[in-house]
Amino acid sequence: MATVDVVTVRRSVVYFAVTLLFVTVSCVSVTRDPPYETRYFHQYLDHFNFASRGAGTFKERVLVSDAFWRSGGPIFFYTGNEGPITRLWNEIGFMKDLAEQFEALIVFAEHRYYGESLPFGENTISQENMGLLTVEQALADYAVLITNLTVSYCQDPDVCPVIAFGGSYGGVLSTFLRLKYPNLVAGALASSANVYMSAGLTPGNQLFQDVTEDFRRYNPRCPDRVREGFAEMERLAGQGEQGLHEISTRMKLCSSLQDHADLVNMYRWVREAFTVLAMEDLPYAISNGPFLPAYPVNASCNLLLKATDGIEEILQAVGMLYNFTSNLSCFDLHEDFVPCADPTGCSLMPGAKAWDYQTCTEISLLESTDNVTDMFPPDAFTEETRAAHCRERWGVTPRPGWLATQFWGKDLKASSNIIFSNGDLDPWRRGGVLQNVSSSIVALEIQGGAHIMDLRAPNATDPLSVIRVRQQEAHLIGQWISEATNQKEASGNG
Amino acid sequence: MATVDVVTVRRSVVYFAVTLLFVTVSCVSVTRDPPYETRYFHQYLDHFNFASRGAGTFKERVLVSDAFWRSGGPIFFYTGNEGPITRLWNEIGFMKDLAEQFEALIVFAEHRYYGESLPFGENTISQENMGLLTVEQALADYAVLITNLTVSYCQDPDVCPVIAFGGSYGGVLSTFLRLKYPNLVAGALASSANVYMSAGLTPGNQLFQDVTEDFRRYNPRCPDRVREGFAEMERLAGQGEQGLHEISTRMKLCSSLQDHADLVNMYRWVREAFTVLAMEDLPYAISNGPFLPAYPVNASCNLLLKATDGIEEILQAVGMLYNFTSNLSCFDLHEDFVPCADPTGCSLMPGAKAWDYQTCTEISLLESTDNVTDMFPPDAFTEETRAAHCRERWGVTPRPGWLATQFWGKDLKASSNIIFSNGDLDPWRRGGVLQNVSSSIVALEIQGGAHIMDLRAPNATDPLSVIRVRQQEAHLIGQWISEATNQKEASGNG
Repeated sequence: MATVDVVTVRRSVVYFAVTLLFVTVSCVSVTRDPPYETRYFHQYLDHFNFASRGAGTFKERVLVSDAFWRSGGPIFFYTGNEGPITRLWNEIGFMKDLAEQFEALIVFAEHRYYGESLPFGENTISQENMGLLTVEQALADYAVLITNLTVSYCQDPDVCPVIAFGGSYGGVLSTFLRLKYPNLVAGALASSANVYMSAGLTPGNQLFQDVTEDFRRYNPRCPDRVREGFAEMERLAGQGEQGLHEISTRMKLCSSLQDHADLVNMYRWVREAFTVLAMEDLPYAISNGPFLPAYPVNASCNLLLKATDGIEEILQAVGMLYNFTSNLSCFDLHEDFVPCADPTGCSLMPGAKAWDYQTCTEISLLESTDNVTDMFPPDAFTEETRAAHCRERWGVTPRPGWLATQFWGKDLKASSNIIFSNGDLDPWRRGGVLQNVSSSIVALEIQGGAHIMDLRAPNATDPLSVIRVRQQEAHLIGQWISEATNQKEASGNG
Repeated sequence: MATVDVVTVRRSVVYFAVTLLFVTVSCVSVTRDPPYETRYFHQYLDHFNFASRGAGTFKERVLVSDAFWRSGGPIFFYTGNEGPITRLWNEIGFMKDLAEQFEALIVFAEHRYYGESLPFGENTISQENMGLLTVEQALADYAVLITNLTVSYCQDPDVCPVIAFGGSYGGVLSTFLRLKYPNLVAGALASSANVYMSAGLTPGNQLFQDVTEDFRRYNPRCPDRVREGFAEMERLAGQGEQGLHEISTRMKLCSSLQDHADLVNMYRWVREAFTVLAMEDLPYAISNGPFLPAYPVNASCNLLLKATDGIEEILQAVGMLYNFTSNLSCFDLHEDFVPCADPTGCSLMPGAKAWDYQTCTEISLLESTDNVTDMFPPDAFTEETRAAHCRERWGVTPRPGWLATQFWGKDLKASSNIIFSNGDLDPWRRGGVLQNVSSSIVALEIQGGAHIMDLRAPNATDPLSVIRVRQQEAHLIGQWISEATNQKEASGNG
């Protein structure tokens, strides 16, 4: 098991003095500033079971950059979420700026079951192999990795404070890492972390209401027109097969909707598009993940208002996301739409199936629509509909109360040093922590801000609010680092 | 799965309004003051795996007494350790006194794989079924149970503060419960909790040194005589088969020692006796667990000094523990001695095999003897000898750094409201927390106190030190309860 293969090495190789895990430095990728190395850490398949299968290992991909690092400086650790870590590396620009400021080592750890970190190789995403995909296992991967990193990079393993960073589900993970492993991370910046929603502690009728509100805020006629579009589809669907065929043609679907279930899936696929437009409502275009223009809510609303009829309106908005390059002649719904237990959709996700499994087990995202407080067709996503999908798809039954029991529900006061940042345009924000919990667990609002906006690289078009929030974050992180360093010096460790 | 069987019911049955677990009230035991009910909670086999086998359930035994309980009062929760919970119920008297004082509900939860809480019934203790025996699973059992108890017993589930209690490994568990679930427990009284030793963070040459010191403290001639006894055995063992036979006869073994391995096992069995005498060195006789007279160190030392030769000396001390009733005509070493990865021995434990598995996986107890700083034959218990035993016996390999990573090692400062109490006669004490960590994580010393002495029922012969420590504990627990209640009222929950 103890192998250190050096395939390609950029600058001097730091050998990891590992006791439990064994590092394979197997390839080096160099992207834009700063460059990083790709490393692979051996992790136990099951941190909570020493017997039989649990004692096997797999390789976790980790991106490491010491471009800014000063020996003894802090370690900035991104708790990878649902997707390839390389994509997240490109999305999280602010952390690199901060690393330069604080002379920090940058580490991006990939979440098990995503990207290249597949515990069972090509057979990972299958019903019989999904059981070891849990929040606890992922956090344990990070905890073991951090323990080994501090041993490797710091003469005294207690000397380098580690700060956790994460956005969206990654922000949930960085929060939980701070709650459960304050011995390892001195603080966490959790951007757009829907910790309360994930634990099933929010009402379940807010997210799509807030998507609607984003469009209404730009132009109140927009949500009205979207409602009209859906109403027209409903009217046609009431005519049976011919009506479904007409909807399909006008929505440019490659094959015709066959029945009500198909129609519901299409509605959800449309709703997913509006949700992404709302959460990614940035003042600049993005091309990592979805391709979107600047201010996509405004842009799609403008298109929508120019359309000739209700269905054309919806098509315009959907096309902005799903056919950004205008290359598609039709939409292949059977190919593009991924049914999943996340009602905001999994269609655009490289890790859609693994995420579906997570939302079928620990992560609760029970958001519904009613066409009254939101602009979408009524679609109740209840614990029962969730469980039915999950049993059929994965053979598992959710345990609704578990995440709140395990990760403290809404009772976070015993922790400290967490920043919860949220943009007020982000429909996910009401799933998170919007008020200070204590003097060191603080909520920061980015006015005019979208999903994980603060973690993105600074942009010339950034509103003043996000610039100020980033300054506050830098200030607080600086405090955490000073405190941790002083404590260690006081205790004779540093 | 949802069954509530009422077999026997004492006073009014409190139906548990459970959402995830289902309660079976199946029998009622009434011991000495106060009476308790025996309940059975359905727990998931694997809290960290929702798929396949993990989704099965087993029944956890829980003893509940509402004899002193006032509605809305606190819940005192004993985190069961290695053994039947009924035995622990009888051992932990002080918690009941405190419950009367604070009008608390008393709950004693049995640890999975011990007593009647066997996840796989009669087949539980077998290599293929041991994997779900971990500290994390046991804590998760307690967390889920507490969540359900507060829902059941308190109109507002946030209203009743829960205080964790535990002694020895149970104290380790109550500490870890507070570290990892401060949302559920407002504080922990951890008596004789060897948290640092269990995580492999102590030197490994202290425990038997302190056993020796206990005997030396009473009479310095005692450890010298014990050393002489072992030296005589070594001399005889050097003579080969005949010498082994002579040792066997003089030690009253039922069958003769065959080889060096047998001899080493006997040495360990003897060492276990001295260790138990030292840790249970109370001013009064006990009959729960081992039967022992008052001040067994002094008593055995007196016997030992009267003996006619070295081997007879050791026999006298061993006999005090293993043949307290003087009914045995010989010692059946093959029957009585249980080899295990706990160097202080498992021979007297009803849950010896499960404890062996735990010390083969997460719990590290690498204590050695050298016959220089202690009175026992040299016996180095290293990570290698431990691993060899564990692979052979259970097919598992220990992960030495894991417990320190998972449960914060020596970096407990991020937690709060923990009392670490230790008796200065207890050879386990240097495995625990002996200095205050912060203003609310405090170390209390019981001068002249043995293992978990403060948790035992008050006794007329108690030294003033334990009486004072109990008063301090009551005071601090009262503070925690007030704080928790005030916080809940302030946040509008109470």
